[in-house]
Amino acid sequence: MVPTIRWLDNKVEMIDQRKLPHRLEWYTCRGHGDIVRAIEKMVIRGAPAIGIAAAMGMALGARSIKDRSYRGFRAKFRKMADGMLRARPTAVNLRWAVERMTRTVEGMADRSVEEIRHRLEQEAESILAEDIEINKEIGRKGEKLIPRTATILTHCNAGALATGGYGTALGVIRAAKEAGKSVKVFADETRPWLQGLRLTAFELMEDRIPVQVIVDSAAGYFMRNGKIDLVITGADRIAANGDVANKIGTYQIAVLAKENGVPFYVAAPISTVDLDIGSGGQIPVEERDPREISIFRNHRIGPQGVKALNPAFDITPARYVTAIITEKAVVKPPYKSGLKKLQENPRKA
Amino acid sequence: MVPTIRWLDNKVEMIDQRKLPHRLEWYTCRGHGDIVRAIEKMVIRGAPAIGIAAAMGMALGARSIKDRSYRGFRAKFRKMADGMLRARPTAVNLRWAVERMTRTVEGMADRSVEEIRHRLEQEAESILAEDIEINKEIGRKGEKLIPRTATILTHCNAGALATGGYGTALGVIRAAKEAGKSVKVFADETRPWLQGLRLTAFELMEDRIPVQVIVDSAAGYFMRNGKIDLVITGADRIAANGDVANKIGTYQIAVLAKENGVPFYVAAPISTVDLDIGSGGQIPVEERDPREISIFRNHRIGPQGVKALNPAFDITPARYVTAIITEKAVVKPPYKSGLKKLQENPRKA
Repeated sequence: MVPTIRWLDNKVEMIDQRKLPHRLEWYTCRGHGDIVRAIEKMVIRGAPAIGIAAAMGMALGARSIKDRSYRGFRAKFRKMADGMLRARPTAVNLRWAVERMTRTVEGMADRSVEEIRHRLEQEAESILAEDIEINKEIGRKGEKLIPRTATILTHCNAGALATGGYGTALGVIRAAKEAGKSVKVFADETRPWLQGLRLTAFELMEDRIPVQVIVDSAAGYFMRNGKIDLVITGADRIAANGDVANKIGTYQIAVLAKENGVPFYVAAPISTVDLDIGSGGQIPVEERDPREISIFRNHRIGPQGVKALNPAFDITPARYVTAIITEKAVVKPPYKSGLKKLQENPRKA
Repeated sequence: MVPTIRWLDNKVEMIDQRKLPHRLEWYTCRGHGDIVRAIEKMVIRGAPAIGIAAAMGMALGARSIKDRSYRGFRAKFRKMADGMLRARPTAVNLRWAVERMTRTVEGMADRSVEEIRHRLEQEAESILAEDIEINKEIGRKGEKLIPRTATILTHCNAGALATGGYGTALGVIRAAKEAGKSVKVFADETRPWLQGLRLTAFELMEDRIPVQVIVDSAAGYFMRNGKIDLVITGADRIAANGDVANKIGTYQIAVLAKENGVPFYVAAPISTVDLDIGSGGQIPVEERDPREISIFRNHRIGPQGVKALNPAFDITPARYVTAIITEKAVVKPPYKSGLKKLQENPRKA
């Protein structure tokens, strides 16, 4: 599998996910602003992937800061951090990555700007490498929940393309396959961006994991007809009480899963858990351009002047979530204590 | 509003709904086979509208039967009826209309083929005229359920274009507006054919009823956030116990409505009620070409060779339905007795 994003000497390259699956095109970012725009425009998407991109964007940005003094450098760096944080509001991984890069700067007050820049590049590369390892660990922990034969519904793309590699929800599915289990996937197409049809189907077909795409409206139909054994999705932010922000439509699937007695799992790195937020109601939900709905590849689909509302995420209350699969543990209700424990002892597995 | 379908001297014209809202194009049918294809290809869609089209198709077909004997004519007519019944399996109105036309033939054993043909044309025209009247009556009965100010969610298109005119679900909304109520509509875009974005938004904008389109995945989000006061959809078939077959996605919305305490209404003519079928499990659900999902306007969206499953309808169990609005009465649970009563005394209102 080609990497989602990579750091080259003086630039960052990422697969332009708007073009997949038709064209595998590299999108080149030479500065902080390029990365901000790539995140905003969905060249790269997926909570962990935009975290990595943000870290690389901060490292690229550090190169362009002219100040030689630590104080001057730090002030410019902080300003760039603010700009990066505004790129997309819902996924907390972006903030997590920017804060990690900022802490790196804060801890190097006695070092030269050259050293800090170098260290920031290393830090961004570490975030990428760690993310892939974390996903593999999520896979190992999560695959234990998968029966020997299972048909799994997923929504949007929580795969290699949404992360540094391997994927969160799709990582669990990959790990189940690697463990010799017989897994089949139903992929919601995931309007309006069609990440399920374009990205999840593409990744799974590459890995020879059987996948069938359905419209988002059909998820309940197949659950009710007993075709789905379990659901796994990723997450963009998880509140302290276990409420989950994820791609619009996730809430519906979770309600339908509960109604039909189908387990509903969320797979995400610990960096997605936001203990600063008590419940999902406090998570900002990004509203995107309504034309993402009414215009398709430059073709207007709806009537001239049609109004649309385009929330990109929704909040699934914790009561619909069977378990949250992280790299450290599979957390089950009650989530408040379980999620807190994850971050209290980050080194202990 | 232009008519959905009209009988002209020796042909039937219908709006090509595949082209809306961009082009208002008439699609001309000169024989029975043309109508069968128009229904199969979704030139015309919507349970009541395909009932009317089927009746007109049978009247057109009668013209082409060369037999002068009643027995010969009837045999050919019955064969054409079988062909028409296969056009689309889920909506019962098609069968209802074909049976009504067949009964007309059965009752005229002593008449000339000329007289029968003429009578069939009149019958088809009656079905169209009656349908518009029925919808207006559904509107009058249904609007009493609408609060003075209401935001209404609808799915697919159960409007003028899905019927002879005025609409069932949209008929109730139109009647509420005509009664001076302040109504706003959320329209699910309704993948894969986008009837909500293309047709419902178009109809409501023409009538200056405020409408906002959302992706099908966002219905639950807006219900949970208290933005939706009630849901109204049409129906393709209603079983004796009140289970409702309708556009794929309807089941999900009904579950979400119940979960969020939002009333879920179904508006349909009595011809949609199929007392021969005890429950929704016996209703055939049409599976359509998967390329309706993976190809959009001749552009392949998904990966080469991607598999998709494309059920066109789903079944909503009666327990999720708050009331069924018909031209004769608003039926509430228990549905079995209420629906039976509708057909027992068809003349009494």
